[in-house]
Amino acid sequence: MTSTSFTVTPWEVKGEIDYEKIIKEFGVKRIDEPLMHRLSKLAPLHLFLRRKLFFAHRDLDVVLDEHEKGRKVVLYTGRGPSGHTHLGHLVPWIFTRWLQKAFKAKLYFQMTDDEKFLVKDLSLEQTTNYAKENALDLIALGFEPHDTKIIYDTEHIRELYPFALKIAKRTTFSTAKAVFGFDNSTNIGLSFFPALQAAVAFYAQQQVGMAGGEKAADAGKNVQCLIPCAIDQDPYWRIARDAAPYLGYQKPATILSKFLPGLSGPAGKMSASDAANAIYTTDKPEDARKKVMRAFTGGQPTIDEQRKKGGNPDICTVCQWLNLLFEEDDDVMQQRLKDYRAGKILDGENKKYLADKVVAFLEEHQRKREKARDVIEKYSLTA
Amino acid sequence: MTSTSFTVTPWEVKGEIDYEKIIKEFGVKRIDEPLMHRLSKLAPLHLFLRRKLFFAHRDLDVVLDEHEKGRKVVLYTGRGPSGHTHLGHLVPWIFTRWLQKAFKAKLYFQMTDDEKFLVKDLSLEQTTNYAKENALDLIALGFEPHDTKIIYDTEHIRELYPFALKIAKRTTFSTAKAVFGFDNSTNIGLSFFPALQAAVAFYAQQQVGMAGGEKAADAGKNVQCLIPCAIDQDPYWRIARDAAPYLGYQKPATILSKFLPGLSGPAGKMSASDAANAIYTTDKPEDARKKVMRAFTGGQPTIDEQRKKGGNPDICTVCQWLNLLFEEDDDVMQQRLKDYRAGKILDGENKKYLADKVVAFLEEHQRKREKARDVIEKYSLTA
Repeated sequence: MTSTSFTVTPWEVKGEIDYEKIIKEFGVKRIDEPLMHRLSKLAPLHLFLRRKLFFAHRDLDVVLDEHEKGRKVVLYTGRGPSGHTHLGHLVPWIFTRWLQKAFKAKLYFQMTDDEKFLVKDLSLEQTTNYAKENALDLIALGFEPHDTKIIYDTEHIRELYPFALKIAKRTTFSTAKAVFGFDNSTNIGLSFFPALQAAVAFYAQQQVGMAGGEKAADAGKNVQCLIPCAIDQDPYWRIARDAAPYLGYQKPATILSKFLPGLSGPAGKMSASDAANAIYTTDKPEDARKKVMRAFTGGQPTIDEQRKKGGNPDICTVCQWLNLLFEEDDDVMQQRLKDYRAGKILDGENKKYLADKVVAFLEEHQRKREKARDVIEKYSLTA
Repeated sequence: MTSTSFTVTPWEVKGEIDYEKIIKEFGVKRIDEPLMHRLSKLAPLHLFLRRKLFFAHRDLDVVLDEHEKGRKVVLYTGRGPSGHTHLGHLVPWIFTRWLQKAFKAKLYFQMTDDEKFLVKDLSLEQTTNYAKENALDLIALGFEPHDTKIIYDTEHIRELYPFALKIAKRTTFSTAKAVFGFDNSTNIGLSFFPALQAAVAFYAQQQVGMAGGEKAADAGKNVQCLIPCAIDQDPYWRIARDAAPYLGYQKPATILSKFLPGLSGPAGKMSASDAANAIYTTDKPEDARKKVMRAFTGGQPTIDEQRKKGGNPDICTVCQWLNLLFEEDDDVMQQRLKDYRAGKILDGENKKYLADKVVAFLEEHQRKREKARDVIEKYSLTA
């Protein structure tokens, strides 16, 4: 959607996003307290739920109903490999790992190396290389090869293609225009691509059904697919959900996140094309520290003023990163926000507090990321 | 193209086709006498060239130049498997076998089971089944597995996809609209498909280059692809030829045929959707005989009138089938046309003469077609 003050599409997120407006216009539902309560019965609620980073859904209640009846759930998320992974990309993946444990579910993870080739000034070699690099980050988060299958579109197109064709056959260019904002200058590869991204939802259901001993022709018709992702991907799931009855599958459900703000301010999402605004998993920890120390804050021009007037955590990216990503302890977080607002915590200290956590995370992540190189092939769909 | 009196697109051919007009509007060239002479040096000219069923081309002269320099030529043609094969479908395949011997070239044959699913009221299972049935007809014509590779799109999409993506990236929906007559109601699968049909030309060049020991990255850049097919497929090759410089390959050349008229009259091409108008390779020979005996002719209402006034071979489908397909001997053919025009050959006799040839062909073809079932797997691209 494009509003007067912000834009949220799969290819562009900018401006100050009004998530209330998005909920209404996309027609998704808020994750309310009763739903949180149901989720908490599966596992202690993840930070991202407690801090409302994951805030909206489609049919999450249906997934919980089906799960309670003993039906299988399969998870599906992915990544457009147009560069290295930054912390914003990790948000849905970290959450997916929590969902995987909560639902004891298999994950299908799509690397859209084709899509990024089609929309960016990158070669196919570059996007397929980034896909492998990004996969290291996924693996570093603790996913196991026995229940995590990575789909590289250019490698695994054959597996997805029959589903994509069935979705494409009933999706006109008009519909794609309306849902994705395509026009006559859109290339014919990109115009087909939504069918391929939607396809994985059904492929995943079929595979889980087949693993359970069902026959290919109607395998997975009772499996429920749940897609954790950022809200900008919602248009794809509208296409998938519309196609589901024609393919004979359950409509995929979604659990949707807001965007992690970039370091230079609360507007938009952390962009992979602005290196100073984002922290990459491949950044040297000390470079990451420097980026944090230069972050946009909610502080006052001088220390004296901040001590007197206090800071504004609502516009402070440092407070937000702590709240959404790095400060696990709810009580500590509440106290810190209160202290920041009261001028008891100054920006320098706050930045250092975050920077230490970022550095610790990166050192650990990078260690695991390098180890992932030895096992990456085990995660491939066709391994 | 759509003219006031006829339509020729990859999905529709109807009306009385003005091939002169097509040559002008498509911007293709007539196969002239000097070109025929050059071809005759490779092998005795095929019936289809002598009788001008293959009548036009793009860059056939370039292919001959390159071939004379010792460069490799690869052939590419295909079939949209929306039903059983009829004699009209065999025309480019029979000619391809001649070209294969003349140029000592490998053939890549594409079965577009995906396309036919996207445009017809057929299931994917039906189109993939027809693809295998149609392949039997190809094999029955004498192609050998060592230099004939059949590409089934849904099976071999992975091999074609990188080329298709590169073509798609620089083909806008506007271009596809202009070239293929697509509009906003076109499904997003069909709008992508031209990239996939164009892709085979470059894939084939690459494969031949690699077979010659070149490295994948720039394999086949000097190989020349020649595409024998009916004129309605020309739009695809415009897309392919436009994309060639960006992919670093030679522009594919084409050698283009007119349509074999249907039995019920000279307008349009033999349609796979009108069973009485076409003779299928799966027709019982005696049913085929009956179809021929009911064919539209250039005769007069009564035998007496025909003896007096003579018949008109130009509108007579029986004369045309003999001329274009079944009467190999040029002298015999010329004499028969003269005799028909003079009223010396009557329709009944003419039909029987053709029917005997059709029956003999079908009996032989069907015998070979059944034997092909044992070897069909050897022809698969990935065999």
